Amino acid sequence: MIDTATLTYDEDGLIPVIVQDIRTKNVLMLGYATAETLEETVSSGRMVFYSRSRQQRWLKGETSGNFLHVKSMVADCDSDAVLVTAHPEGPTCHLGTKSCFGEHP
Amino acid sequence: MIDTATLTYDEDGLIPVIVQDIRTKNVLMLGYATAETLEETVSSGRMVFYSRSRQQRWLKGETSGNFLHVKSMVADCDSDAVLVTAHPEGPTCHLGTKSCFGEHP
Repeated sequence: MIDTATLTYDEDGLIPVIVQDIRTKNVLMLGYATAETLEETVSSGRMVFYSRSRQQRWLKGETSGNFLHVKSMVADCDSDAVLVTAHPEGPTCHLGTKSCFGEHP
Repeated sequence: MIDTATLTYDEDGLIPVIVQDIRTKNVLMLGYATAETLEETVSSGRMVFYSRSRQQRWLKGETSGNFLHVKSMVADCDSDAVLVTAHPEGPTCHLGTKSCFGEHP
């Protein structure tokens, strides 16, 4: 899907990841990943972020069951952002909405 | 559209902004904004970022003519990311593609 070694990470080793619903094309959330969590995402097929607040690996859905099943992963033109398309299992947002951006757009 | 005072900015005063084509729903780019450039975006209707590399205000399209005409702007559930829908005037990416994420998805 992506060569994680070619990406540009920030000073904390993080890169922003946009997750888009592959079916509806709605933007579901923005999270952050490390090279390691991206590698795990590619190998497992489930989105793994790095939680900046908890400062640890974060398998999305580990607690809630609401996994993001990743279908594609591409970097942007300057390799410092990632776009993931996924099939969401249940609501993505912890507030119970499909998207962390509410029901918009 | 949004109350810029309620958003959470990073230590550099920046917040990531996802831009989505309102018509095709393709994700066009990820940029960064300050409270000031978001305010200008709201008042002008054209997307104004803050360029981290040039460390200055960046009216998208100022040089290329490829403006992003903003139609909506929402924050995510923890107010540290913004989703903008826009009507892009010409290709968004400096490489000439519609999206900075290539022709995907």
